[in-house]
Amino acid sequence: MTETLDLLRRVATATLSAQLHKRGYRDVSIEGVATNLPGTRLVGVARTLRLIPYRPDLFERHGGGYNAQKRAFDSLRPGEVLVIEARGERAAGTLGDVLAARAAYLGAAGIVTDGCVRDATAVAAIGIPTYAAAPHPALIGRRHVPWETDVTVACGGAAVQPGDIIAGDDDGVLAIPPHLAQEVARAALAQELEERFISEMVSRGEPIDGLYPMNPAWRERFATWRRRQSDVEDQ
Amino acid sequence: MTETLDLLRRVATATLSAQLHKRGYRDVSIEGVATNLPGTRLVGVARTLRLIPYRPDLFERHGGGYNAQKRAFDSLRPGEVLVIEARGERAAGTLGDVLAARAAYLGAAGIVTDGCVRDATAVAAIGIPTYAAAPHPALIGRRHVPWETDVTVACGGAAVQPGDIIAGDDDGVLAIPPHLAQEVARAALAQELEERFISEMVSRGEPIDGLYPMNPAWRERFATWRRRQSDVEDQ
Amino acid sequence: MTETLDLLRRVATATLSAQLHKRGYRDVSIEGVATNLPGTRLVGVARTLRLIPYRPDLFERHGGGYNAQKRAFDSLRPGEVLVIEARGERAAGTLGDVLAARAAYLGAAGIVTDGCVRDATAVAAIGIPTYAAAPHPALIGRRHVPWETDVTVACGGAAVQPGDIIAGDDDGVLAIPPHLAQEVARAALAQELEERFISEMVSRGEPIDGLYPMNPAWRERFATWRRRQSDVEDQ
Amino acid sequence: MTETLDLLRRVATATLSAQLHKRGYRDVSIEGVATNLPGTRLVGVARTLRLIPYRPDLFERHGGGYNAQKRAFDSLRPGEVLVIEARGERAAGTLGDVLAARAAYLGAAGIVTDGCVRDATAVAAIGIPTYAAAPHPALIGRRHVPWETDVTVACGGAAVQPGDIIAGDDDGVLAIPPHLAQEVARAALAQELEERFISEMVSRGEPIDGLYPMNPAWRERFATWRRRQSDVEDQ
Amino acid sequence: MTETLDLLRRVATATLSAQLHKRGYRDVSIEGVATNLPGTRLVGVARTLRLIPYRPDLFERHGGGYNAQKRAFDSLRPGEVLVIEARGERAAGTLGDVLAARAAYLGAAGIVTDGCVRDATAVAAIGIPTYAAAPHPALIGRRHVPWETDVTVACGGAAVQPGDIIAGDDDGVLAIPPHLAQEVARAALAQELEERFISEMVSRGEPIDGLYPMNPAWRERFATWRRRQSDVEDQ
Amino acid sequence: MTETLDLLRRVATATLSAQLHKRGYRDVSIEGVATNLPGTRLVGVARTLRLIPYRPDLFERHGGGYNAQKRAFDSLRPGEVLVIEARGERAAGTLGDVLAARAAYLGAAGIVTDGCVRDATAVAAIGIPTYAAAPHPALIGRRHVPWETDVTVACGGAAVQPGDIIAGDDDGVLAIPPHLAQEVARAALAQELEERFISEMVSRGEPIDGLYPMNPAWRERFATWRRRQSDVEDQ
Repeated sequence: MTETLDLLRRVATATLSAQLHKRGYRDVSIEGVATNLPGTRLVGVARTLRLIPYRPDLFERHGGGYNAQKRAFDSLRPGEVLVIEARGERAAGTLGDVLAARAAYLGAAGIVTDGCVRDATAVAAIGIPTYAAAPHPALIGRRHVPWETDVTVACGGAAVQPGDIIAGDDDGVLAIPPHLAQEVARAALAQELEERFISEMVSRGEPIDGLYPMNPAWRERFATWRRRQSDVEDQ
Repeated sequence: MTETLDLLRRVATATLSAQLHKRGYRDVSIEGVATNLPGTRLVGVARTLRLIPYRPDLFERHGGGYNAQKRAFDSLRPGEVLVIEARGERAAGTLGDVLAARAAYLGAAGIVTDGCVRDATAVAAIGIPTYAAAPHPALIGRRHVPWETDVTVACGGAAVQPGDIIAGDDDGVLAIPPHLAQEVARAALAQELEERFISEMVSRGEPIDGLYPMNPAWRERFATWRRRQSDVEDQ
Repeated sequence: MTETLDLLRRVATATLSAQLHKRGYRDVSIEGVATNLPGTRLVGVARTLRLIPYRPDLFERHGGGYNAQKRAFDSLRPGEVLVIEARGERAAGTLGDVLAARAAYLGAAGIVTDGCVRDATAVAAIGIPTYAAAPHPALIGRRHVPWETDVTVACGGAAVQPGDIIAGDDDGVLAIPPHLAQEVARAALAQELEERFISEMVSRGEPIDGLYPMNPAWRERFATWRRRQSDVEDQ
Repeated sequence: MTETLDLLRRVATATLSAQLHKRGYRDVSIEGVATNLPGTRLVGVARTLRLIPYRPDLFERHGGGYNAQKRAFDSLRPGEVLVIEARGERAAGTLGDVLAARAAYLGAAGIVTDGCVRDATAVAAIGIPTYAAAPHPALIGRRHVPWETDVTVACGGAAVQPGDIIAGDDDGVLAIPPHLAQEVARAALAQELEERFISEMVSRGEPIDGLYPMNPAWRERFATWRRRQSDVEDQ
Repeated sequence: MTETLDLLRRVATATLSAQLHKRGYRDVSIEGVATNLPGTRLVGVARTLRLIPYRPDLFERHGGGYNAQKRAFDSLRPGEVLVIEARGERAAGTLGDVLAARAAYLGAAGIVTDGCVRDATAVAAIGIPTYAAAPHPALIGRRHVPWETDVTVACGGAAVQPGDIIAGDDDGVLAIPPHLAQEVARAALAQELEERFISEMVSRGEPIDGLYPMNPAWRERFATWRRRQSDVEDQ
Repeated sequence: MTETLDLLRRVATATLSAQLHKRGYRDVSIEGVATNLPGTRLVGVARTLRLIPYRPDLFERHGGGYNAQKRAFDSLRPGEVLVIEARGERAAGTLGDVLAARAAYLGAAGIVTDGCVRDATAVAAIGIPTYAAAPHPALIGRRHVPWETDVTVACGGAAVQPGDIIAGDDDGVLAIPPHLAQEVARAALAQELEERFISEMVSRGEPIDGLYPMNPAWRERFATWRRRQSDVEDQ
């Protein structure tokens, strides 16, 4: 798995999305969220937290003290990404700087919520990649009751299970079923090599026609180029 | 509880909503759904079904055969209302006429989904009150995987637990925490008696000022009216 | 004005909208509302009520007792239409059956709110045309503070002033500036006569080409038809 | 084709949607529209009209007189359904009663627009099934320029080509690629027979488990039932 | 008041929001707006401007010349924040660089609009904190008529009165009722001290459990830490 | 035309929007898109690409190989802006870094799509101004079929024709009918000169009253200022 995660760190979510699409996984992107650290790549293993809508009796029993939200953050392990189901609610926070700091201390790889982030500037300063719908100053209790951890959740329109591989960059975030992760990562790397070649050709003025996607002639030139690349990289 | 349910059948959701609001329960209405049987009142005890977003691997394991959706309908008992968490998704059905017929056969009181209904005309003909976001012809598998039953769900922005009391009419649907049901039902009945008096006065041309809400003078006249009412109803 | 209101009762909002459009009034329809009495025409003179977002201190001072909402309903005069600014809020009522009954008693012509209606079934039974975004059981105080009456309001994206002429049917509701009402009503009547002729021709199988809009040949035939119509109607 | 259209008239869109889904056609429903004639089935062959956003110069050249909208309606043939691309715009009409009457006179099977309908009550009275986002009194020129006919359009999120088979009922409307129409219609009929059997069993109190979908034992009973059905229907 | 404003400048909106929430003020955040100067804190006293939907006759009388919008900007005093009610309209500007420059010259503390900003880059260069829904090039007259100043307004779903205290940072903007400002500011400062301590503990690896919120043992350690802090800060 | 384009590069979209508004062109801004290169001005001549909703048969015939999307990019000429109709779809990309690189190589002035951009970071690095609804990792085929080029399109609610002049900055993007471009550009330059003067006066503390818009006295001072400006600029 470590090797797969390393591979995933080297490929764009756009490429991973294409490889997943090809395998019938068309709804694996977490929609409507954006990163707080543009330019940073996120790769990790999903842990989950599920919030439910606010109700006084449920909040009284489950909202205070060492609630599910806090237990979720406190139990993060290195390389994990906490994925929070917040029903796309844009009128309340789902975490703040204290919990983000705890996640960072524990070596978590990142946080993804389809709700909002409080203390957004402080959270960004902590440096843990956090994807959210927006910043918002309100407490979680304005709209949510922290409910349970480590269950399958819906986040930004995608199903996410504990153990899924989460991959994010500035384009967005994907939840990759673990049984596909290695295969998809390798195929994505191969695709990116092709696209590097194509980009190089485009930058020399080659037209798209025949090149993207590559016709047999270009495939042959690509094979040569790839061999040369390997030689260079082997030196 | 039977007595409470009987009381609830006699009061409007508008009145129940007011009584719940007064007790701090302001977010207990299931938003964005409408009834398929205008003029019909719905009262029953919540059972729940949770759907998660479609993903091929999860659908393969959980979507077919005797899935959570079918188990939920098959296990309904008289007087129950199945509440379905569908994330407000308006591009797929969450039940059709076969399952609605099963619910009706089992004596269920109704169905509430914040997703859509297939075969909407056939479902209405079955005569079981069904609140949904809209009709839609698509299979559940276009957007959902049937996931689990008898857990706390989010439906139309409200938290709903198995055992909650569900009350609906043309204004909408409420999820009433069971510990409040009796108290709220009684207070609602009392409030409706007041409003019946007020309406009668309004229909005679009395101005709102002082009457709604009632000032001491009107309260006194109401007390007299109420006694006379009881006498009439006792005969 | 009475004569103008009578004329307006005889023309469709679609025709009035066209005449207003022609005069540069393109944003006079109140969007996102629907009637509770399909098939009923609404014509009257605007009175207004402005709600503002809920806040505890403001609600305490302005929300209870004989508030702006109740003063607005209590002061309606025959033929008036109460137009309520509710910011398109779909999670709370803005009036219920008691206030609708008072409006009906006072001879008001109708109610328009871009928020919701409580006790929607009871309100419809009262028989006063009420245009709203949706039914909803919640009290006004879930989202609003009744604020002031008889000011210019925004309702469904249109500006409405006390004294504007409100005209509605199943297509929607328009706010007509009073200085344009007579001119627009007359032009709409003339247009509807033309369209009646055109419809008659279409029902006889005449193609749209040349007829709608009418070319000179059709205009001539229309002139003849109109004279005959008048003769018939004069008898 | 006539035979296929006849078959399609006998099956629900819910069943057709299921059959199309099975064949990989998951995005063929026209979203966000509703019928003006509940209980009426729509089946026909698509013709198309494309509107573009209003701009004064384009409207001057293309909006008036015998424009694309009017040419589209005037050229409808028996059994055709006019599908209008209106970008889901809810603030302007895309047709009114004169054009609907022309379509009805020409024997068109129906109209589908993801925009609005003017004179909605008059259009319903004409009796031609019309699916639209909502009624609206405003002229097409408030938001649109009638642009071209008989091209591929986007309507309610679905691609529709002239010649596609349009099938609608209260659940919604589907655009069926013509090469699939016969196959899908037949498979849908077969599926509905199964569901009729299942519904009958459910109405007798049979549980869903094993019955829906049918296990081998139920399949056998179904085979017997189907033979008996055929016998009955053959008499 | 000056002292209170100074206190408010030292606390985050997330903390203020928590303190207001605790006192029942849960709907005081102005939703859907973002700052043009990330990292800048906004604190000031509200002045207000109310826009209504565009209509030709109203615009002709109220839209041109020295209109309500211009009077509002021209009358700003040092430390004031102009809050503009624009109904969340995203298709027109509500101010541009000239008016922003005037506000800055007069020493205003900031601008908040739930509509858009024209010349957004120039406005940001002026350096006055401006919270808006988005940039947009269109004139105010595309959607609005400048209507009145110094009245209670609705902005981003919150009620705002002249004299309210406006506090903003990257998380969003709050409208604080003046009678609560001092109390809330002090409580927020106390809360932030606690959170500083908790953050310090988290950064040393302490678990959330028992620390956030603090149990008695941690409360004691916090008391010690606070005394030491004061000593350090007193030196 | 080159001269007009040069003029347009010197004026803000806010000013152009005002000049177009004055001439009745109120709906020429492409709504809901933002630039990837803040601070960069975009001016060029429109080319167009129209996407339609995904459907398997249409994608098979039109989606692969040298499709309309690729032909559009491959045929761009210096100074052109590719405008893509993507129906505001936020769940799929409409271009990625390879095509953006090709556009840049060919000297295109920019790209505008009301859909999303894949590889958004790489596209920004290429340095070609690209206005889009958002970044998104998914392939175009998740939602679209590349359909046709060089036709009139709808983009962000505006009609855009090949040959229109596209002008963008941080406020947004406008589509200017070519016959108005020169006139509007000149009038905008004149207006900006006035606003420069007004801004200078505002920065000296002059009130808005009488100055913005200018009364006769200020107009005179402006005339003097303008002469002095010209003298300075002539030296």
